[in-house]
Amino acid sequence: MIAAGDLVLLRAEGGREYLATVKDERLHTDLGLVDLKGIEGLEWGSTIASHLGKPFTVLRPRATDFFKHVKRTGAPMMPKDIGAIIAYTGLCPMDTVLDAGTGSGVLAIYLGFIAKKVISYEVNDHFVSVARKNVAQAGLSNVEVRQGDILEEVEKLEGPFDVVTLDMQDAPSAVEGIYRVLVPGGFLASYSPFFEQAMETRKAVERAGFANYSTIMVSEQELEVGKRGTRPSTRVGHTGFITIARK
Amino acid sequence: MIAAGDLVLLRAEGGREYLATVKDERLHTDLGLVDLKGIEGLEWGSTIASHLGKPFTVLRPRATDFFKHVKRTGAPMMPKDIGAIIAYTGLCPMDTVLDAGTGSGVLAIYLGFIAKKVISYEVNDHFVSVARKNVAQAGLSNVEVRQGDILEEVEKLEGPFDVVTLDMQDAPSAVEGIYRVLVPGGFLASYSPFFEQAMETRKAVERAGFANYSTIMVSEQELEVGKRGTRPSTRVGHTGFITIARK
Amino acid sequence: MIAAGDLVLLRAEGGREYLATVKDERLHTDLGLVDLKGIEGLEWGSTIASHLGKPFTVLRPRATDFFKHVKRTGAPMMPKDIGAIIAYTGLCPMDTVLDAGTGSGVLAIYLGFIAKKVISYEVNDHFVSVARKNVAQAGLSNVEVRQGDILEEVEKLEGPFDVVTLDMQDAPSAVEGIYRVLVPGGFLASYSPFFEQAMETRKAVERAGFANYSTIMVSEQELEVGKRGTRPSTRVGHTGFITIARK
Amino acid sequence: MIAAGDLVLLRAEGGREYLATVKDERLHTDLGLVDLKGIEGLEWGSTIASHLGKPFTVLRPRATDFFKHVKRTGAPMMPKDIGAIIAYTGLCPMDTVLDAGTGSGVLAIYLGFIAKKVISYEVNDHFVSVARKNVAQAGLSNVEVRQGDILEEVEKLEGPFDVVTLDMQDAPSAVEGIYRVLVPGGFLASYSPFFEQAMETRKAVERAGFANYSTIMVSEQELEVGKRGTRPSTRVGHTGFITIARK
Repeated sequence: MIAAGDLVLLRAEGGREYLATVKDERLHTDLGLVDLKGIEGLEWGSTIASHLGKPFTVLRPRATDFFKHVKRTGAPMMPKDIGAIIAYTGLCPMDTVLDAGTGSGVLAIYLGFIAKKVISYEVNDHFVSVARKNVAQAGLSNVEVRQGDILEEVEKLEGPFDVVTLDMQDAPSAVEGIYRVLVPGGFLASYSPFFEQAMETRKAVERAGFANYSTIMVSEQELEVGKRGTRPSTRVGHTGFITIARK
Repeated sequence: MIAAGDLVLLRAEGGREYLATVKDERLHTDLGLVDLKGIEGLEWGSTIASHLGKPFTVLRPRATDFFKHVKRTGAPMMPKDIGAIIAYTGLCPMDTVLDAGTGSGVLAIYLGFIAKKVISYEVNDHFVSVARKNVAQAGLSNVEVRQGDILEEVEKLEGPFDVVTLDMQDAPSAVEGIYRVLVPGGFLASYSPFFEQAMETRKAVERAGFANYSTIMVSEQELEVGKRGTRPSTRVGHTGFITIARK
Repeated sequence: MIAAGDLVLLRAEGGREYLATVKDERLHTDLGLVDLKGIEGLEWGSTIASHLGKPFTVLRPRATDFFKHVKRTGAPMMPKDIGAIIAYTGLCPMDTVLDAGTGSGVLAIYLGFIAKKVISYEVNDHFVSVARKNVAQAGLSNVEVRQGDILEEVEKLEGPFDVVTLDMQDAPSAVEGIYRVLVPGGFLASYSPFFEQAMETRKAVERAGFANYSTIMVSEQELEVGKRGTRPSTRVGHTGFITIARK
Repeated sequence: MIAAGDLVLLRAEGGREYLATVKDERLHTDLGLVDLKGIEGLEWGSTIASHLGKPFTVLRPRATDFFKHVKRTGAPMMPKDIGAIIAYTGLCPMDTVLDAGTGSGVLAIYLGFIAKKVISYEVNDHFVSVARKNVAQAGLSNVEVRQGDILEEVEKLEGPFDVVTLDMQDAPSAVEGIYRVLVPGGFLASYSPFFEQAMETRKAVERAGFANYSTIMVSEQELEVGKRGTRPSTRVGHTGFITIARK
């Protein structure tokens, strides 16, 4: 049963979707006003009508919804890359995760939906502020966004962390400190859009003494099904290199 | 602190790895006998020596280790595909998952490391038996492998399930029943090695009334770093099509 | 030495390129008027100045230039696919080639630059007219664009042809007739944007009795080199399926 | 009509293929002895029987046949890459081509089937010897394999060449000299298996003053059609980087 304060995903005709919180307010949509208070007490999956009589299905939001609906301060990591990081690190609910740089927080939110605790560092004040709002909207009290430079902050951290994820330009310089705060057998996953940066990260990983590591590129093509036939999408391709290293 | 009955990953020189349970036994390895009883009371990350004096680091196993170390009854789904399924369904610890066919249980184990509960159906008796051993070895009491045909069994299930994953030839026939047991907003992820099967699954998904869906191919290339230079691996390529559908 | 009537490629600063014929006219460009008559008698690679004093290098046009500079009536086949067709058919200057549908003639022009003779069929009147102008501009008197439906016209052809290339929706129906007019050991190359069409073509090829055949997808990624680093282009991907069959 | 001294491709059941020269000899095959003298005077596409009565179809060999049937001294360039080089340079029968290093001569043979003249340099004596035999077998009197280091030899060459192709480790050092012997508007195509080498070549191309250039990766997947369905091949992937530059 849905309670006051719950975050809901409202889905209407034409693929329209809205994230909203159940409280004493009305949501303005293309299909009319939705009385958010009226959602309280409904079951997940129920339908509520706007003042124009348009039906909205009330869904429990999932991690994927935040990828689509959070405010972005830059290009977020794509689900295919996030998925690879989760699968190759074996992320699980017992994990404590260190993350940097947060950006708009899409990866941190994904991690937060699975892990026990996520601490995410971001240098940029504005990004921190947006990411905190995104994390709060996702209802993730286990994700803490801290303003600060991981290169300095890692020295003050005790850890140990089970998994560390990096999406930042200066990842190579961070690797040594991260090795120290990782639990033995724990994983570092570092995402780099550029080849040179990926190679530098890889060298830093080798120097730091990680037991094993590899660098992968993950690509994804969507099948386009039309009246004339089916074909792999002509778009897509590369997004980045992921270096996975185990202490 | 490591207790009797705990599953451990023992890592030795040359990339050697062994999964073992802490009990009153000795493990035979290339590098000598390891007294498993002696691990009890150690901290994770400690080192224990074999009778030949070779050091073994004692690590807490992670989901990724089971991909490499479980007994296989066929080609398991690859981490890149498992990762895409986790990311696109937004799998989380609150989820109840229905899975079929189990195979050697690699996907079910990955799901079990994250989700609250996984029920996995497999028709083949031998596969069921192997998968149950693999799941038990991973210490996952929340993963239940059932012998049975999902096409019949789904009729008896109440659900609702948050996520359903399929890796079976007759996936298209299962789609309608699965729609019924999915929670509104829940996800179906169906993996097919072949194009025709993927298209049939997709059509079944459309007929069943899923709100949105797409079919993707995920590919992965490893960077090979050698003395002469770096290049994307010449191997790899296609493994399968994943249809993701949301109720 | 460049003669009157020669086609030239004029290259100026900023990557500007112009195709023009050496005759008693002036070419209007962003960088001023170029006296085309003045090019007569120059050596290839010479420079001529516009009336504004801007230098234009006079180059002998190559097949690649027509891909970029011809008038298009639709999406032309990409060089990567054209190259695969040339390499897998082993196209050479002794070959007589049958082609359909012409479209804007990009493939026919490429073929014409290498083969002895190219006969290309196109149903659409307007496309025929544009393709003929494009072929004439390329100075290829060995490429004949005929208005007509290959499905009917192939019955009247004697052949034999060394290579047949198809880029048309109804390729599967054309395969049987084409087999008849191919020289033993000759090649058919059929391009299809869609999977289903490629599979139908492949089945038709099998039925027609071709000795061997395969269907391939060719993809290309450009390396993007920027200040922040190097990465494979995020665009590109699939364009089509090429079925190569040998009689 | 087939004459004495002609090279023929003999094709028999089960996909068996043999390259042979029409002369007073018998060819030993799995399917019996073939009297090569008996081929003289036949039409291309005729059938001749072995002494066991097995039919062999007599075909005119094409460039593609030499890719499969020449003696190899290393991994040859793949048709997809050869095709891209032909298409992006716009290779045609008026072209004079400079090539290095020859290797087993597969690329040189492909080029020789199209271009007017090909001069190909190879340092390794043994490779030169094998390549010369391969070229002779292909009947290409317009392809000249020279023993020597292109880095030194290019200084003595007058040119101009329309196209230069490189498949050698020290390609970056050769670029400057090659620029000098290229005709204005001519193309350099350099193939590198490794990223670092491709980047060095690219930098050398930029320094040498080429008008435009790009570096591409071409990949190819074959569709595997089986009883259970169709899927892109799980093999294949990367082979190399091709830098295309125009003077």
